[in-house]
Amino acid sequence: MTSAAKSYDIAGLKARLGGIRTEENPALVRQKSRDFYWYSPTLKRQLDAVSGDIVAFPASEAEVLAILAACHALAIPVTPRGAGTGNYGQAMPLDGGLVLDLSGLDKVLEIVPGRVRAQAGALIADIDAACAASGQELRLHPSTYRTASIGGFVAGGSGGVGSISWGGLRDLGNIVSLRIATMEATPRILELTGEEVQTVSHAYGTNGIILEVEMPLAPAYGWTEAIIGFEDFGEAAAYANALGEQDAILKKLVSVIAAPVPQSYFLRHRKYLPDGLHIVLVMLAPVARAAFESFTKRWNGRTLYRSDLVGPEEAKGLPPLYELAWNHTTLRALRVDPAITYLQTLYPFPNQLSLAEQVHARLGDEAPAHLEFVRFDGKITSFGLPLIRFTSEARLEEIVALHEDLGIPVFNPHRYTLEEGGMKQTDAAQLAFKREADPQGLLNPGKMIAWAHPDFDLGAGRTYLFLGLERHAGRAGAPGDPT
Amino acid sequence: MTSAAKSYDIAGLKARLGGIRTEENPALVRQKSRDFYWYSPTLKRQLDAVSGDIVAFPASEAEVLAILAACHALAIPVTPRGAGTGNYGQAMPLDGGLVLDLSGLDKVLEIVPGRVRAQAGALIADIDAACAASGQELRLHPSTYRTASIGGFVAGGSGGVGSISWGGLRDLGNIVSLRIATMEATPRILELTGEEVQTVSHAYGTNGIILEVEMPLAPAYGWTEAIIGFEDFGEAAAYANALGEQDAILKKLVSVIAAPVPQSYFLRHRKYLPDGLHIVLVMLAPVARAAFESFTKRWNGRTLYRSDLVGPEEAKGLPPLYELAWNHTTLRALRVDPAITYLQTLYPFPNQLSLAEQVHARLGDEAPAHLEFVRFDGKITSFGLPLIRFTSEARLEEIVALHEDLGIPVFNPHRYTLEEGGMKQTDAAQLAFKREADPQGLLNPGKMIAWAHPDFDLGAGRTYLFLGLERHAGRAGAPGDPT
Repeated sequence: MTSAAKSYDIAGLKARLGGIRTEENPALVRQKSRDFYWYSPTLKRQLDAVSGDIVAFPASEAEVLAILAACHALAIPVTPRGAGTGNYGQAMPLDGGLVLDLSGLDKVLEIVPGRVRAQAGALIADIDAACAASGQELRLHPSTYRTASIGGFVAGGSGGVGSISWGGLRDLGNIVSLRIATMEATPRILELTGEEVQTVSHAYGTNGIILEVEMPLAPAYGWTEAIIGFEDFGEAAAYANALGEQDAILKKLVSVIAAPVPQSYFLRHRKYLPDGLHIVLVMLAPVARAAFESFTKRWNGRTLYRSDLVGPEEAKGLPPLYELAWNHTTLRALRVDPAITYLQTLYPFPNQLSLAEQVHARLGDEAPAHLEFVRFDGKITSFGLPLIRFTSEARLEEIVALHEDLGIPVFNPHRYTLEEGGMKQTDAAQLAFKREADPQGLLNPGKMIAWAHPDFDLGAGRTYLFLGLERHAGRAGAPGDPT
Repeated sequence: MTSAAKSYDIAGLKARLGGIRTEENPALVRQKSRDFYWYSPTLKRQLDAVSGDIVAFPASEAEVLAILAACHALAIPVTPRGAGTGNYGQAMPLDGGLVLDLSGLDKVLEIVPGRVRAQAGALIADIDAACAASGQELRLHPSTYRTASIGGFVAGGSGGVGSISWGGLRDLGNIVSLRIATMEATPRILELTGEEVQTVSHAYGTNGIILEVEMPLAPAYGWTEAIIGFEDFGEAAAYANALGEQDAILKKLVSVIAAPVPQSYFLRHRKYLPDGLHIVLVMLAPVARAAFESFTKRWNGRTLYRSDLVGPEEAKGLPPLYELAWNHTTLRALRVDPAITYLQTLYPFPNQLSLAEQVHARLGDEAPAHLEFVRFDGKITSFGLPLIRFTSEARLEEIVALHEDLGIPVFNPHRYTLEEGGMKQTDAAQLAFKREADPQGLLNPGKMIAWAHPDFDLGAGRTYLFLGLERHAGRAGAPGDPT
């Protein structure tokens, strides 16, 4: 299979890499060439056959630089990979070449009050474990807390658990600094701070390889978990919004999930979830418990579950609440019903509640509501991660269009490019930085439309198709090829 | 002088108090009967002669209870007092009687992650000093940080430094619990949590004596202080508002002070303050410095001062930045120009910027602008503490009316009652609690209109005059009586 694909000089590459650990076994390479793209039936169809030619596992920064130099010399694409927990195909090598698995760069380098510095491959949970001794933890993490790497989060994530207090990764200050390597004949190392970090964060590794990440920390009080139930979805959403606006009740998560999703898919919490109730998931600081109880009483919310009120044995059998939220909501639904997919939307302030009600009234059970409340530009508003009962890609596109027609931006998780999965526009700073840091366009090819196809009309409603994708997907085997 | 005032059985009281320390020297009693009411020319005229008959200095909770029981038995009013740093006459005994000086109850009782418990008389700065060992500090403090007591802050304050991140004391969760004593034949001790704390917080001690306070803590990173200058006031205000909305830049203070106030009154910072520049005072977490610099550059703000960039010798000569903000702005102006007074207003979201510009364009140099940005109901907005170049009480009332006509609520600091200094309405929960906890109306008489005069029409625009005030002010000597 790989023999037909020798467009890259992998043998020459290996000769240059000396003792650096690599892997060419096709099944393993294929495994290291995917992420959670299969949440999307569209991406599953498009990307299922994607595979790199070789995976490298550097154990040090020096090894990363050696790999980059060698790949640059041989014009071999490099697609960096953290833990592969993305959903947009961020870490998938559309044009083949080398997958740069950064999981070996996993050291937590420095912890001081308010700040941690770690290598890109360090797992988020491991960083928090290291920070616990000083009573600290990361401000933000994805629902894949236990498996995701910090570099992958910065390169391909946007926020998540914690965004109700701190906003998103796009906000100035949520990434303190980045140490990156450029993709040049002699790779340079750059330290980016302030606004500069935004040129490389959420660029899917297209314009620099993140080596180290410096992140702000928040106090680690432990979090009290609560599930509050409402008979009316609008009430649940309004309560969650108002709870978000309670400035003195410190929170890490405020999610609203419409019935029957919790009852159908949150199996280990099932006994706390009476039929018909729409639920709000809350992680709050223990110091705020009494305030939270008073607040919830004002809204006549029904407390269905509180982590501090169940016994330790019972608690042990339950996943943490953030593993019911954000994209873990989708994951739990998918595990029960493989026909489920989802969207990621933003209900803009100040119309978040009416927009959410409107769109879900329109779509009914085809798209059960899932709201994630966050701070966004200083206000509380809500992302939507509605589940979609998938019927066809055409219908999925109709649902996307329905949102956009209502003024609800969609961060389309059925697209693998930065532009189409984001704000439908090219990030000029990211593009300019790619010209400087990856002049040959070898980093994660096919993800930045503006690089490969600057004239592509993002407003025309056509889906971008990276040319290399077909070419290289073919090399890795036909769709459905068993691995 | 005091001999004419024997409407209370002070001798009988002393006999009951046994070894509890008291003070009857008129000059000392008078001193302990005042706060910073003299910021207001109106209050100065009305309250200047106010004095209690005796001051008690309990050294323990048991002594407080003994004093309350004795005063209850003899129907002697009790006005509690922390450090006397209020500006609304909160701690002034309008009806004479006993001043309960709580400064002897100054123990910090418990510090755990996220929470501190202290006696009511503990100074805020002392609490923070005790919390520093665990890397923690109080979320909120008044600009009188170094002199104010925590009990006084809870009983008579509203927020201040820290409100840009945490909202105000009125917000559920900014006071964890209160331990209070009732004013009954046998005083009861009550522990209030959640919503209950709001019955006693900001009630000026009219419905219970606060014995202990449990407050949430925030991390103590130390704060970088910055002064940013703008040539245009509207730009300065818009920058401050947008900085407030930067969710990832952790801040403790964002104040805007219009020229020429800083140049005229901030004498020790004078050399950093070029003529004509409107300034923004910022306290930010050190981890956010680079983000803050990038953000400020976007707005073309001129960095006039940064605490981390001056030498330690120079820094030592400067007061902390919060002592230029909130009511310390007023204090610094008053020290230079005794004809200055001020207002306290709220510019409601989302019109805060246009309302502030509008009112200050209308008033010109008669009321130089001073904005304090805060979180309020989950949004960033601004309080106003404009300086007022005082000419007459009538003109002051006109200026108040001008604000109110524009839809800008005024928390009138020229009124000594809860209702008139607050939201112009009776707090039903506070009144109900007073019926229960102080059935004879002996606690801080004259401050809650609804108690003494339930039919008073707060909407009629008349100023409330407590009857006891005239009677007892007379006892303490005529206005201007030397002490």
